[in-house]
Amino acid sequence: MKHLVTVSTLEVNEILQILSDAENYRVNQRGWYPKEKMFVANLFFEASTRTRCSFEMAEQKLGLTTIPFEVTTSSVQKGETLYDTIETLAAIGVQSVVIRHPEDRYYEKLQEQVSIPILNAGDGCGQHPTQCLLDLLTIQQEFGSFKGLKIAIMGDLRHSRVARSNAEMLTKLGATVYFAGPEEWRDESNPYGTYIGVDEAIQTVDVVMLLRIQFERHSKNHSTLEEEYHSRYGLTVEREKSMKNGSIILHPAPVNRGVEIADELVECQRSRIFKQMENGVYIRMAVLARSLQSVERGMNDENNYQKCYMVN
Amino acid sequence: MKHLVTVSTLEVNEILQILSDAENYRVNQRGWYPKEKMFVANLFFEASTRTRCSFEMAEQKLGLTTIPFEVTTSSVQKGETLYDTIETLAAIGVQSVVIRHPEDRYYEKLQEQVSIPILNAGDGCGQHPTQCLLDLLTIQQEFGSFKGLKIAIMGDLRHSRVARSNAEMLTKLGATVYFAGPEEWRDESNPYGTYIGVDEAIQTVDVVMLLRIQFERHSKNHSTLEEEYHSRYGLTVEREKSMKNGSIILHPAPVNRGVEIADELVECQRSRIFKQMENGVYIRMAVLARSLQSVERGMNDENNYQKCYMVN
Amino acid sequence: MKHLVTVSTLEVNEILQILSDAENYRVNQRGWYPKEKMFVANLFFEASTRTRCSFEMAEQKLGLTTIPFEVTTSSVQKGETLYDTIETLAAIGVQSVVIRHPEDRYYEKLQEQVSIPILNAGDGCGQHPTQCLLDLLTIQQEFGSFKGLKIAIMGDLRHSRVARSNAEMLTKLGATVYFAGPEEWRDESNPYGTYIGVDEAIQTVDVVMLLRIQFERHSKNHSTLEEEYHSRYGLTVEREKSMKNGSIILHPAPVNRGVEIADELVECQRSRIFKQMENGVYIRMAVLARSLQSVERGMNDENNYQKCYMVN
Repeated sequence: MKHLVTVSTLEVNEILQILSDAENYRVNQRGWYPKEKMFVANLFFEASTRTRCSFEMAEQKLGLTTIPFEVTTSSVQKGETLYDTIETLAAIGVQSVVIRHPEDRYYEKLQEQVSIPILNAGDGCGQHPTQCLLDLLTIQQEFGSFKGLKIAIMGDLRHSRVARSNAEMLTKLGATVYFAGPEEWRDESNPYGTYIGVDEAIQTVDVVMLLRIQFERHSKNHSTLEEEYHSRYGLTVEREKSMKNGSIILHPAPVNRGVEIADELVECQRSRIFKQMENGVYIRMAVLARSLQSVERGMNDENNYQKCYMVN
Repeated sequence: MKHLVTVSTLEVNEILQILSDAENYRVNQRGWYPKEKMFVANLFFEASTRTRCSFEMAEQKLGLTTIPFEVTTSSVQKGETLYDTIETLAAIGVQSVVIRHPEDRYYEKLQEQVSIPILNAGDGCGQHPTQCLLDLLTIQQEFGSFKGLKIAIMGDLRHSRVARSNAEMLTKLGATVYFAGPEEWRDESNPYGTYIGVDEAIQTVDVVMLLRIQFERHSKNHSTLEEEYHSRYGLTVEREKSMKNGSIILHPAPVNRGVEIADELVECQRSRIFKQMENGVYIRMAVLARSLQSVERGMNDENNYQKCYMVN
Repeated sequence: MKHLVTVSTLEVNEILQILSDAENYRVNQRGWYPKEKMFVANLFFEASTRTRCSFEMAEQKLGLTTIPFEVTTSSVQKGETLYDTIETLAAIGVQSVVIRHPEDRYYEKLQEQVSIPILNAGDGCGQHPTQCLLDLLTIQQEFGSFKGLKIAIMGDLRHSRVARSNAEMLTKLGATVYFAGPEEWRDESNPYGTYIGVDEAIQTVDVVMLLRIQFERHSKNHSTLEEEYHSRYGLTVEREKSMKNGSIILHPAPVNRGVEIADELVECQRSRIFKQMENGVYIRMAVLARSLQSVERGMNDENNYQKCYMVN
């Protein structure tokens, strides 16, 4: 069974295969499609337009059937464990679950217990593997390869779900990673890059990868923080002018316009922000396909709903 | 691109075309259907059974794929602008959005900025174009034409989303419009009708078009208001007896039974209230078709997700 | 028109027919499927993962189109009656509604008034017919027949939606029913069984049918109640050892692990708890089919949306 809970456990060739599958869905609308009706459910225990709608779209484009699951009207409110929720869904016929959850590493024990694949759509300040993969796809589309690329990851490195795994993957794939941003948001546990100044970073790299300020995770006064942040660490109109020819801008969105990036740069020629969102659908098609293929292979071998063992 | 944000900008022949398309869906189940999978999303920032389910049904009957979008679990709660929400949906492949929003004229700037068509499903006390069109369809089905018809719009004219545009459209189409109801709810900015007494209106007209009292928009004590309203301005069992032969009753629903109209009249022979709801589905099929045809035509010409411009 | 609001009004042969239809869906994926697109809506006025997802799955497996209906964003919040909500849905084309509602016997008058079939998915402390039917199916699959079986229903008999109707149906079908559990939760109005001790029950019967403690309906301190309950009335690891050869465990779920049943028994060899959930889908397919077949038969005869009568 193929869970996807983190990119860290993926081999380089697995990553390249997923990128290639995604690109195939994009360009040729070709790849794996289920032979008969297959069922998935999206369990979002935290707000998200982009990721949720993107998974829904990927599921529809693959021809899957999505069983609606609303956290607010579910037995989770009656204190049901995540394990029981997933196994209930499995028992009624759901063949894979997409989960976003506020708790870091919610999947840790779960992945060894459940009978259907989990696709992690974000856990606390932890992982967000499809976001990482869509970033990689967008870079690959632009530059063909990762070898020798210089990439700056800028902003709230400590609370980001993607900073660490993006840095790790990009390094694995042959790129050089730089970090920039406020002192207090440095993440000393992340060894896959070198801290440099914001201006130097912007002038040097091929890819400026901005991170979202998670205002909902910080307590400081918003508007002060915003203005100050923008002038000191943001991608201002001025700073964009110093970027290298052919370099591009990424941001996982939702964008705080005028904070991480100047309002008028969000859709500028260098920006691949909306392109990232489009690519997200193809990446999600690829990883859904990957997990459901493993279900298809297993369907004749085992009966998932009844995991019996002797008690006596 | 074909937005539908108000009926006021529609030409008479466009209106008649929409009514004719809707009637075609109703009678023959014929008309435009998408050649390949097309995707829409319904963004309801305000409560509504009728309108929302009606759009969902229209989408299903057209064979469209609806991408679920829940306001309460969306990035709107992270302060995302409506523009960014819509462009995000566009980037992932949504081709048209249906929007209900509490803010009057929310669509004003938006319609010039977004890359996919907006269908307005109601804005504040502003417009509700599909409600207007379904009222027109119901009248046309009954009388064949609008010329020479007398129509009374009765009740809370000031806060109604449809009073003004219904009056305007009916006048354009050749009908004579009367207004009746409480003094304090008159709308002096609406020039498309003449105020007369409730009893006179009911005895005179071919169509009694009742408006819903938006209790949620008023502060006065409910039950007093209800009783008083019914006897002074409502369609009582007594008043219905004085209606002309062949005249009909409309109400946009949800009905406050015993307030705007006597409980036992809601499904009486003259009532077309449930018929209006049925017609709503066909109208929404027609306007969805209209906007998606414009998308189909544009699909080979332009690439929506990347609206690039030079910053320097 | 075929409502399903309670099992009590079903004849024995009707029950056996539904079980047989459900088994047919399970084993052969054969049975009634709609000839053309048919539309249903699920109205859940109370939280429920299992039942709701199970109905959604059943609808998808039958190839039905489900029109989303969210209570929290509906006109129910504007004070609309359930009758008007259902007739609105009927007017827009919904052909059957599944309803869960906190009010006992909400369906009583409704079933004579509405124009489309109601499938009751649980009312207050009242009925939950599909739960009863899926319990019966699970027992039938195990033992072939109900004649001579001994079955214990254990736990919160008074507040259970299924205790009474399960006892009634099982008795009708030839089984002998025992009740066990706390004194204060006895239901003296239920004549279809005999009270015996917990240990005696467990040692005697072929089927131990545990009931969920509805903590949300009780006020007493949780953790005390839980521990005390488990040791006095729960299916402990010890007690399970005294069960007869071939006897099985049922529970409607969600399970309070360590309360009604020991954590490690939930998926033990005797447990059919997840099997029940799987069977729930087939039962719901069978009852949806039954009600929609009645709609299909009626479609040429009558026009549902306009129930006209003379007022004068």
